[in-house]
Amino acid sequence: MNAWLEKQAAVRERRGLVRTPMTRKAADTPVDLASNDYLGLATDPRLAEAAREAIGRWGTGATSSRLVAGTTALHLELEAGLANLTGMESALVFSSGYLANLGVTTALGGPGTLIVADEHCHASLVDGFRLSRSRVETVLHNGLAAIEQLLRHRTEPRAFITVESIYSVFGDAAPLPQLLALAEEYDAVLLVDEAHSLGVAGHGAFQGHGSVAGTDLSGHPNVVLTATLSKSLGSQGGVVLGSALLREHLINRARSFIFDTGLAPSSAAAALAAVGIIRAEPWRAAAVHRNAAILTAGLAPALLGPGTVVAHVGKPAGAVQSIPMPSAAAALASSQAAHRAGVRVGCFRPPSVPDGVSRLRLTARATLTAHDIDHACATLRRILEETQ
Amino acid sequence: MNAWLEKQAAVRERRGLVRTPMTRKAADTPVDLASNDYLGLATDPRLAEAAREAIGRWGTGATSSRLVAGTTALHLELEAGLANLTGMESALVFSSGYLANLGVTTALGGPGTLIVADEHCHASLVDGFRLSRSRVETVLHNGLAAIEQLLRHRTEPRAFITVESIYSVFGDAAPLPQLLALAEEYDAVLLVDEAHSLGVAGHGAFQGHGSVAGTDLSGHPNVVLTATLSKSLGSQGGVVLGSALLREHLINRARSFIFDTGLAPSSAAAALAAVGIIRAEPWRAAAVHRNAAILTAGLAPALLGPGTVVAHVGKPAGAVQSIPMPSAAAALASSQAAHRAGVRVGCFRPPSVPDGVSRLRLTARATLTAHDIDHACATLRRILEETQ
Repeated sequence: MNAWLEKQAAVRERRGLVRTPMTRKAADTPVDLASNDYLGLATDPRLAEAAREAIGRWGTGATSSRLVAGTTALHLELEAGLANLTGMESALVFSSGYLANLGVTTALGGPGTLIVADEHCHASLVDGFRLSRSRVETVLHNGLAAIEQLLRHRTEPRAFITVESIYSVFGDAAPLPQLLALAEEYDAVLLVDEAHSLGVAGHGAFQGHGSVAGTDLSGHPNVVLTATLSKSLGSQGGVVLGSALLREHLINRARSFIFDTGLAPSSAAAALAAVGIIRAEPWRAAAVHRNAAILTAGLAPALLGPGTVVAHVGKPAGAVQSIPMPSAAAALASSQAAHRAGVRVGCFRPPSVPDGVSRLRLTARATLTAHDIDHACATLRRILEETQ
Repeated sequence: MNAWLEKQAAVRERRGLVRTPMTRKAADTPVDLASNDYLGLATDPRLAEAAREAIGRWGTGATSSRLVAGTTALHLELEAGLANLTGMESALVFSSGYLANLGVTTALGGPGTLIVADEHCHASLVDGFRLSRSRVETVLHNGLAAIEQLLRHRTEPRAFITVESIYSVFGDAAPLPQLLALAEEYDAVLLVDEAHSLGVAGHGAFQGHGSVAGTDLSGHPNVVLTATLSKSLGSQGGVVLGSALLREHLINRARSFIFDTGLAPSSAAAALAAVGIIRAEPWRAAAVHRNAAILTAGLAPALLGPGTVVAHVGKPAGAVQSIPMPSAAAALASSQAAHRAGVRVGCFRPPSVPDGVSRLRLTARATLTAHDIDHACATLRRILEETQ
């Protein structure tokens, strides 16, 4: 094995694609434009208190699968809270978003199912497609016509369309109303991953409730949602939202639910506290959008300079501003230079980018101060100009 | 979708296979023979304190993937502690054991790889095999001759044998020394899932360090281990243990590591505290074995009665005593009767049982009192005798 591992490592090295986790230190206080803690709730004292109390009451682990002894009253309360927040009938919590996506795709898919997937769908969905033994057709990003063609000509009795309401790497949105119309017309399920929407997207009274809450999609019989508890909700875990019938089906058929230890009670409690805060403090979701707009405006001079790829740089749908870079090496060097200057940004290189283009990923988190954003813009402008 | 879901639900109902999570109440204090909290650490005040402190220092979530900003000093300390405990060079922590198994099988597998798997391997390993696009051959339980045949006649340059050191449902052990000899002879990787061994198995000075620590397998270049942090370690998460080169390979190639939020700091802290306790208090592992022996002896009169399937009832290798039942309905009714009498036991029905035989699963946890075990034995003897 070692000879093979060494060869693989050498190839990575040559291509400038070696990944190394950057270790966060507790004393570290860079401007955080890298994490997915969109609302700043991961360090909110109310989540901390809820998690601590859950540890005292339930212990540090779920102790077994949800079916055997790993379901506490807290898990059920969290499921009710998430269903309520998004306007869906029912919810089932998994120990991670990855496992939620594997669970729903494998339990709904199978022979006799066509899955039509946007090419930018998350790795966990793609793995679920493969595991499900469905026919999988990947379409160009936001390609409504291609989706319609595939649904119209399908021979399978069942089909689902899979998208993310806001995409992870590009930060752009899916055309949900049009997708719902297609799902209705062709009797398909519309599976929407709300990972980057929940807590951030939502209009009017539903600000922060996600892209689906308060729209025609919410509670619609053709719609199934997934989300993570580890981004806006500042915790860990994942969830599938849909009908009560779907929930019962997942409990009985989703292997990543049945054969996995339940979510730790402390994480369930933190996520539940976050659901309450998202309802009570819509200013957080609003601040994400305001900060994203300020960040985009502040970076525009550098982004519009000669030689910079600007194709995908626009007004972000949620918290994420994505900046294409000329190479993997340039992306890495720029993110490292930013880090040295006290600004932490995401650095995405193949195979983590759907189009093969390396990029910096900036998260306009709710709790960034005006000073943080100014400093980040000045730093990144300088670095981006030097990259050209 | 709903018509299809309803049809599936009706089939389950007819076959007596409907699953419903039993909700644990905080005030509930049945005798716990169901959970995987083998050492009683999930409610240990030292784990609770470590988790609470981590929440104060790091927050309630990892806030992003391990590669972006989700690696804290705590994660690295936990990895060093786990490597040290098991005698392996290196460790990589995942947010669940399920994801650890998916990660290692997909990152090591692929075209050009033969995976020889024991038929009783956990669902997460089986899903990983499928995802990896390797050739997968499943062999009869503990079938050394079949494994050798497959390795000898393989055409693939790479191969691995996959087993669990103690199996989840039957509670029996894998013949590790013989498997290592095969791995050496045929230049294969021996992948050992220590989920039910870590904290429980181990000889002499290595009591509780798992089935591999202190044996020829520990630190062997052909050996890779996986384990969960959610059973003996009373927390949540999973780990892959092997060489430093393997760790680096997984960081770069395991999709379930790269594209998943890091383990919550509180869970990492609790698991780290558990590692220390396993070292300091070998009496816990010893108590598991003593309790298992008492439980087996106490149930023997019922198990040897007429009509009971006794094929797989013997001295358990670890904490788990498995009792075959005449039907899925009998298994469910018995576990419900036990619960009413204050004894919680596991109830495993298809598809959660590798041989299709429904069974009760009893966990001889370290912190069961003599009174607990007496009460459990009396209750279960009565129920098992009535079932015949």
